[in-house]
Amino acid sequence: MESIKVSLSQDQMPQKWYNIQADLKTPLDPPLHPGTGQPLTPPDLTPIFPMALIEQEVSQERYIAIPDEVLQVYAQWRPTPLMRARRLEQALGTPAKIYFKNESVSPAGSHKPNTAVPQAFYNMKSGIKRIATETGAGQWGSAMSLATNYFGLRCSVYMVRVSYDQKPYRKSMINTWGAEIFASPSQQTNAGRAALAADPNSPGSLGLAISEAVEDAATHADTNYALGSVLNHVCLHQTIIGEEAIKQMQIAGDKPDVVIGCIGGGSNFAGIAFPFLREKINGLDLRVLAVEPASCPSVTKGVFAYDFGDTAHLAPIIKMHTLGHTFMPPGIHAGGLRYHGMAPLVSRVAADGLIEAVAVHQLDCFAAGLLFARTEGIIPAPESTHAIQAAVAEALKAKEEGKERVILFNLSGHGHFDMSAYDAYLAGQLTNYDYPQAMVDQALAQLPQIGLASSRM
Amino acid sequence: MESIKVSLSQDQMPQKWYNIQADLKTPLDPPLHPGTGQPLTPPDLTPIFPMALIEQEVSQERYIAIPDEVLQVYAQWRPTPLMRARRLEQALGTPAKIYFKNESVSPAGSHKPNTAVPQAFYNMKSGIKRIATETGAGQWGSAMSLATNYFGLRCSVYMVRVSYDQKPYRKSMINTWGAEIFASPSQQTNAGRAALAADPNSPGSLGLAISEAVEDAATHADTNYALGSVLNHVCLHQTIIGEEAIKQMQIAGDKPDVVIGCIGGGSNFAGIAFPFLREKINGLDLRVLAVEPASCPSVTKGVFAYDFGDTAHLAPIIKMHTLGHTFMPPGIHAGGLRYHGMAPLVSRVAADGLIEAVAVHQLDCFAAGLLFARTEGIIPAPESTHAIQAAVAEALKAKEEGKERVILFNLSGHGHFDMSAYDAYLAGQLTNYDYPQAMVDQALAQLPQIGLASSRM
Repeated sequence: MESIKVSLSQDQMPQKWYNIQADLKTPLDPPLHPGTGQPLTPPDLTPIFPMALIEQEVSQERYIAIPDEVLQVYAQWRPTPLMRARRLEQALGTPAKIYFKNESVSPAGSHKPNTAVPQAFYNMKSGIKRIATETGAGQWGSAMSLATNYFGLRCSVYMVRVSYDQKPYRKSMINTWGAEIFASPSQQTNAGRAALAADPNSPGSLGLAISEAVEDAATHADTNYALGSVLNHVCLHQTIIGEEAIKQMQIAGDKPDVVIGCIGGGSNFAGIAFPFLREKINGLDLRVLAVEPASCPSVTKGVFAYDFGDTAHLAPIIKMHTLGHTFMPPGIHAGGLRYHGMAPLVSRVAADGLIEAVAVHQLDCFAAGLLFARTEGIIPAPESTHAIQAAVAEALKAKEEGKERVILFNLSGHGHFDMSAYDAYLAGQLTNYDYPQAMVDQALAQLPQIGLASSRM
Repeated sequence: MESIKVSLSQDQMPQKWYNIQADLKTPLDPPLHPGTGQPLTPPDLTPIFPMALIEQEVSQERYIAIPDEVLQVYAQWRPTPLMRARRLEQALGTPAKIYFKNESVSPAGSHKPNTAVPQAFYNMKSGIKRIATETGAGQWGSAMSLATNYFGLRCSVYMVRVSYDQKPYRKSMINTWGAEIFASPSQQTNAGRAALAADPNSPGSLGLAISEAVEDAATHADTNYALGSVLNHVCLHQTIIGEEAIKQMQIAGDKPDVVIGCIGGGSNFAGIAFPFLREKINGLDLRVLAVEPASCPSVTKGVFAYDFGDTAHLAPIIKMHTLGHTFMPPGIHAGGLRYHGMAPLVSRVAADGLIEAVAVHQLDCFAAGLLFARTEGIIPAPESTHAIQAAVAEALKAKEEGKERVILFNLSGHGHFDMSAYDAYLAGQLTNYDYPQAMVDQALAQLPQIGLASSRM
């Protein structure tokens, strides 16, 4: 029997997250207050975040210990398996070895609980009783609903109305875990009521749902806000993926030539990539590849500049790769990859030349996803098909060049709650979409007036 | 960190299935031809099954080697984890230890691929090019669609119309794996066309879908039929579950006092229970508990007698616990537990007093399932909540008695494609249903006229 899996025991689970801020050659530019344009201070954030997470956000420590209570929850599905995709290799006829890290095995079906669990934990420790958060496609809202159970918190999710209506089983999942869910815009907040007054049939937007959740948290003393991507502490928590993968690749006896993840806000990519980037900074020879949709190409077509995190100018101004906060993403099916900006840490390592980025087309991604489902069994989330597509392209390039190559990608989640996307693909209803440069230029003209050079610390 | 998981490596996967026929004190009664009432012979079955499976059906060998090609596929998700449900224990305040075997981690989300894969393999080896099968709720059709991919077979699934319409994402899943799917009754077969002629809006039934799949297989030389439960070879293939669990319980350092599984056709129960029954036959002291819905109580309210396997009298007559083949199951949400009969092997060990059976109510099962989801994270399939309910009852009994007790149950699958059942439960739309004894008696009056005594070999 050929070996196709490296399982680690519970005892072998890494005990620390890796903080790449300690190894950056260029420090991050500070986030700015959306009202004053001045660097944010911890008191600006304490109304919505617990101090432990604020400290992690700015920490320069290389390693941060994972609390025992968090490890205990992680153990319900971690360490996740490292798989060798031998059937996919055979189907491609490639000399390359393709490995993937299977994050789809969490109860919520994606990597998101890796950060939802510690966020719930630190909030509980600080005396918070309830989390308010938003969700677009539903992965993050599901993960937070799951995580709050473990620490006796309540959870309120604001889900973008159009997704709420299109994906009713995400709502069911969130309810099953005991959280309450509101279609956004809702009657729960001033932001929601104002939007409904303007348009009773508003489909909502991620920006508006963020505004509702932040307002909910800021106006209730027992409630904090939680974000599922972009922020430094989110990327930090996800590094458990890469730390496990490094151990598992050693056991497998292979060294990856290229490490691949898809990017929307950047968190699953950060999770697998940052520990390998530490090795790269320390001299290991490997490529690290971030894969984004051609319809929302923040790194490959955007600029690295200060921009607002949301449309309503409530979230901090951060230095990141951005398509402009007025960017309206087309309705592609990889809902988790529709964000105008990119995690500052991912942007920074891209700007420093530590990683490459590539934009891929939706139809190629679904084709790769289907091939993966029919060879490896697992039906991938539409987001994850972007990483698969890039892995397939690398494997075919290796075949063309007649070279061995070791490819590792992150399978960020399964597609059990996204089957309508597969229906649309199989029915031939999907098309490709390249975001036009003219529209990028138009959105970029509306960036806040903060000079790139002067913003560097 | 407390230990909550025993993971086996790929190398530790059992290499043999266990055939409980070798250890039965009473041999099975032979299946009879539905037309003649005479014992079936292999030539009766070769039009729809490969010889390897027919041989396994009647084999008296204690162990049957799992082919390498099957082990290689199993390794994509097996060995499955043995979990200690410590959070569930805490929530119950019980001194009992609760373990569960997590079969939800397969790509199809249940234990069904354990037999779909070898069935596809043996059919491929015998030169078959296509499998025709039926599916009710969709778990089995999904598993077969997955499995045929691994061996280059095509797959045609006849899905009961009412489920086809109610669970559109099962169809999506089956299509994603490349199989074709027809709502049954369909225009593909004489049986389907006749049903549609009688009622163009027929909701279909499992019996009719079986007839369509069998007809398809019998009338195409390159096509065989496959069944996902009830048969001996299906129970055999599922014993990989219990063989792994025995190894894992040894590593955990605990001996189960009670082993629990839900029963519909009986296959997941057989999978976890039979290897432990071997230990029991060899002197180990333990209870084995089969859990069925009160709305479809074939073992607790039915009789052990010869009956038809389907409503149309096309399937063999088998000796089993049955509610009568004219039994019309109520519309409970655990679709996989709606069958009038029980696997002959499960019936036999029940009749021999090796196992106990208990019937439980739907509302209690969903309550237990919700508690499980909120403590252990995983949202269970409605079928699996029956095993959870019984495990919870055992744990509460241990608490009442102030006794330690080691409980092991099989989590047969997740509920990602059954979220509408949770919606209905949370909305208070479900009720309990006890199958009335008068209706059982009425159905039993229509059993085939084959004396119990004379039927013994």
